Amino acid sequence: MSKYDKLTTNAVGRTVPQIINGKEAIPFMGVGKYKPTGRKYAPPISSCADYPADGNKVVASLRDALIRCGLKDGMTISTHHHFRNGDLVANQIFDTAAELGAKGLTWAPSASFECHSPLIKYLEDGTIHHIEGSMNGALGRHTSEGGMQGMGILRSHGGRYQAIQDGDLHVDIAVIAAPTADPFGNATGDRGPAACGLLGFALADSQYADKVIVVTDNLVPFPCVPWQIHGNYVDYVVVMDQIGIPEKIISGTTEITKSPDRLLLAEMTAQFCDEAGIVRDGFSFQAGAGGTALSIGIYFAEMLRKRGMKARFARGGSNKYLVSMLEEGLVDYILDGQTFDLEGVRSMRENNNHLNTSPFTSYNYHGKGNFASMVDVVILGATEVDINFNANVVTHSDGYLLHGIGGWMNCLFSKCVILPIPLFRDRMPVIRDEVTTICGPGELIDVIVTERGIAINPLRTDLIDRLKGSSLPVKTIHQLKDEAERICGKPALPVLSDEFIAAIKWVDGTVIDAVRKVVK
Amino acid sequence: MSKYDKLTTNAVGRTVPQIINGKEAIPFMGVGKYKPTGRKYAPPISSCADYPADGNKVVASLRDALIRCGLKDGMTISTHHHFRNGDLVANQIFDTAAELGAKGLTWAPSASFECHSPLIKYLEDGTIHHIEGSMNGALGRHTSEGGMQGMGILRSHGGRYQAIQDGDLHVDIAVIAAPTADPFGNATGDRGPAACGLLGFALADSQYADKVIVVTDNLVPFPCVPWQIHGNYVDYVVVMDQIGIPEKIISGTTEITKSPDRLLLAEMTAQFCDEAGIVRDGFSFQAGAGGTALSIGIYFAEMLRKRGMKARFARGGSNKYLVSMLEEGLVDYILDGQTFDLEGVRSMRENNNHLNTSPFTSYNYHGKGNFASMVDVVILGATEVDINFNANVVTHSDGYLLHGIGGWMNCLFSKCVILPIPLFRDRMPVIRDEVTTICGPGELIDVIVTERGIAINPLRTDLIDRLKGSSLPVKTIHQLKDEAERICGKPALPVLSDEFIAAIKWVDGTVIDAVRKVVK
Repeated sequence: MSKYDKLTTNAVGRTVPQIINGKEAIPFMGVGKYKPTGRKYAPPISSCADYPADGNKVVASLRDALIRCGLKDGMTISTHHHFRNGDLVANQIFDTAAELGAKGLTWAPSASFECHSPLIKYLEDGTIHHIEGSMNGALGRHTSEGGMQGMGILRSHGGRYQAIQDGDLHVDIAVIAAPTADPFGNATGDRGPAACGLLGFALADSQYADKVIVVTDNLVPFPCVPWQIHGNYVDYVVVMDQIGIPEKIISGTTEITKSPDRLLLAEMTAQFCDEAGIVRDGFSFQAGAGGTALSIGIYFAEMLRKRGMKARFARGGSNKYLVSMLEEGLVDYILDGQTFDLEGVRSMRENNNHLNTSPFTSYNYHGKGNFASMVDVVILGATEVDINFNANVVTHSDGYLLHGIGGWMNCLFSKCVILPIPLFRDRMPVIRDEVTTICGPGELIDVIVTERGIAINPLRTDLIDRLKGSSLPVKTIHQLKDEAERICGKPALPVLSDEFIAAIKWVDGTVIDAVRKVVK
Repeated sequence: MSKYDKLTTNAVGRTVPQIINGKEAIPFMGVGKYKPTGRKYAPPISSCADYPADGNKVVASLRDALIRCGLKDGMTISTHHHFRNGDLVANQIFDTAAELGAKGLTWAPSASFECHSPLIKYLEDGTIHHIEGSMNGALGRHTSEGGMQGMGILRSHGGRYQAIQDGDLHVDIAVIAAPTADPFGNATGDRGPAACGLLGFALADSQYADKVIVVTDNLVPFPCVPWQIHGNYVDYVVVMDQIGIPEKIISGTTEITKSPDRLLLAEMTAQFCDEAGIVRDGFSFQAGAGGTALSIGIYFAEMLRKRGMKARFARGGSNKYLVSMLEEGLVDYILDGQTFDLEGVRSMRENNNHLNTSPFTSYNYHGKGNFASMVDVVILGATEVDINFNANVVTHSDGYLLHGIGGWMNCLFSKCVILPIPLFRDRMPVIRDEVTTICGPGELIDVIVTERGIAINPLRTDLIDRLKGSSLPVKTIHQLKDEAERICGKPALPVLSDEFIAAIKWVDGTVIDAVRKVVK
């Protein structure tokens, strides 16, 4: 028996709850099938008469700002994750909220990290009712074991924008930590001691939250230039000693892989793209941050250099390799969603062809188009893939919810989606009969590259045709699965409860899957 | 007898209609007194499923785009005025709408110019019911003589953003002419054959109109960088041969004045600012575009250069003089709302410290503050001022409505508002017992500078104190009025009908005055 009484089966055959945290949820209907009929969330109209004419919105402390924002039980507080594992602000918000006695809050981060593990105590004492964002690492483990009062809701970066824009996720108070800001609330991420490059993940929050607090450790006189966040959306500014730990702000994975297996994956992927006719003058790509992905970018750079071609744009997460491509003239523009190293931050600050983007421009499915579908090829990861090319990025095969979705779902709309993955991890096959959790429907996933073979989605007859006669080991997904199982054996299924601990929302806000509690 | 049956008297004593074009209108209640209680306009939610995945939104023609947008009787179509008198798009829109047989349309330009006089025929034949924007020159004359079916509504630049944001002015179809754009609809004004610098006046239209058409004569491959207008708001892109006449895009008034009278006004104004302690290290100013204003900027530059100081920011309308101050290091930033010459366009394109702003950042009174109130001093014009410091910018003393409001009303929130005006024009005194039309309440207007004396608003006891002992001819406004009347005689009042032809909306959307039909 589930504690969720209304269940249904969605278009990918998953059993999902129809009521989540007391609100009706629409089951996934298929890619592009759900058509929204409503209107965007309409924030209350403000008046300049209620704001200081001299533009100085600085208040004494985060506590003061939260009180002025009318913090009360049941509210939703949002944060962004541009500081990644170096964030010093989110924990302070809930320490303060707990001191003020607030209960039943929703935390809506754009992502969570290990540094947020201290928030587990607030899940336990009822300060936080549930998280709408990602539940990574320790928070995910705690959630998987039933430690969250409500149900977690995971969304992609674009889905988060969509949900806030559409009013599915109503933010009462947004707290935007900013490496540089002015007293009016104009803010940027590209400079200051805690520089993180950009603040795009906080855009929706600034536009749609009822109250917006900017927190900075580098206050400059008006105007803060550039103003990635508009002070015209901001209610209060708080200055604190340190908002992020610079060494931890940059991503851990910023070096190309030295693993021979991963290098092989990278080389095969690059060769595949070449033989498929994707690497051509004016093409575009998004390679992501992992060591394998970085290496693929380097292969692309070599091809372009050798042929005297250049890419029109590369999507970031940017890093020193992408920046050097830009500076060498191998790519016209970097369209960047988050900088992964200090070279990315520097380049965004200095180079007008290194552009900061947001989930609105790049990923929002409830817009009039977005950038993601214009990208020629995107290289992504997965924890599991199944024989129908469905893929999972949030749970491990033991059922534990340990990762967020990031921009992964949104990137599936690229013209060619390639997942370079090992055939097995810790002797656990990655290709399964059925994934533990569906995050991406197979129809959007075109190619699986493993060290022992490449499987092309049968829907992509064009790619299959192009690769005819290739020296690459093109196989069927069934062949790959069989090969893994021959080596590792048929994997055991995880032991899961009937109880749901989290829902996975598709880019259009519908429920594509739900995650069950792990039975220890 | 008026054809408007419900009249009321507002907080500045003006008789204004309570129903305008069939909709209820709120009378002006005093500066900062009207508190909005509603929510922002909520546009319909879109879905990427309804837009081309390859991002190509180009359609065959403006006609095609208007049909796809569902053009029908009674709709509101908006345009921007960054091409000023060189605009080639607005007239084509209504030519096409007339061909398609649409009737009773509202035209909502951010401003109109002489080049739009051909639209008079559509006011006459009922294609256009009324204009919400500005009715300059011939359009104003036609309106003043009763030639518009509905009532014109004039708003400031900030008031237009406010009205669109708040849903007071609902735009069905926005047509955004863009000097450079990509097929996705990303657009910029800073480059291309019809470069006009920026597209800030079209921001609200892009965000809130139900349908958005970008029209360009310079289509570039995605991405168009910078994207001053986000393609994510755009429905269709139209390519045409020419969208603007470059020679007419730049403002007529881009040279400093050679008139001895105006130079005197400029010198007196600059000296006043200096003696009032306004010109200091880190100060900010907005001088506008007229010949007098340009000369004041040059005086400011001289003072700063001599004293080794610099201004923190200058608000544009930018021009070559302001650009040279930026390049010389006399000002940290230009915060620009529209470029008035090609040097302004070049600087905005090349210099990261020359920033494009919008009525949202600069002027929207229904935001969480705006830039206008942070400016230390603003130099503005007026057609008339009265003994209570109320000022008029839209009508002449003969009652004709000949000018738009521009950012004038919004700039009144600056810390010091100075109007350098001649004591009389064509032997018609500029200082009156009562202005023909109130556009700005006297409490916001601090100083009147005329060639025969300076009047400081009695409310500004601080300025009066500072100017004690000055060599400047400080007088009362009554003294100035008497002096003008001694020379020119007591001016005759215009002969006006009871019928209203236009309403003047204050920055908060309330009606501060209404303009009557002229009796010829």
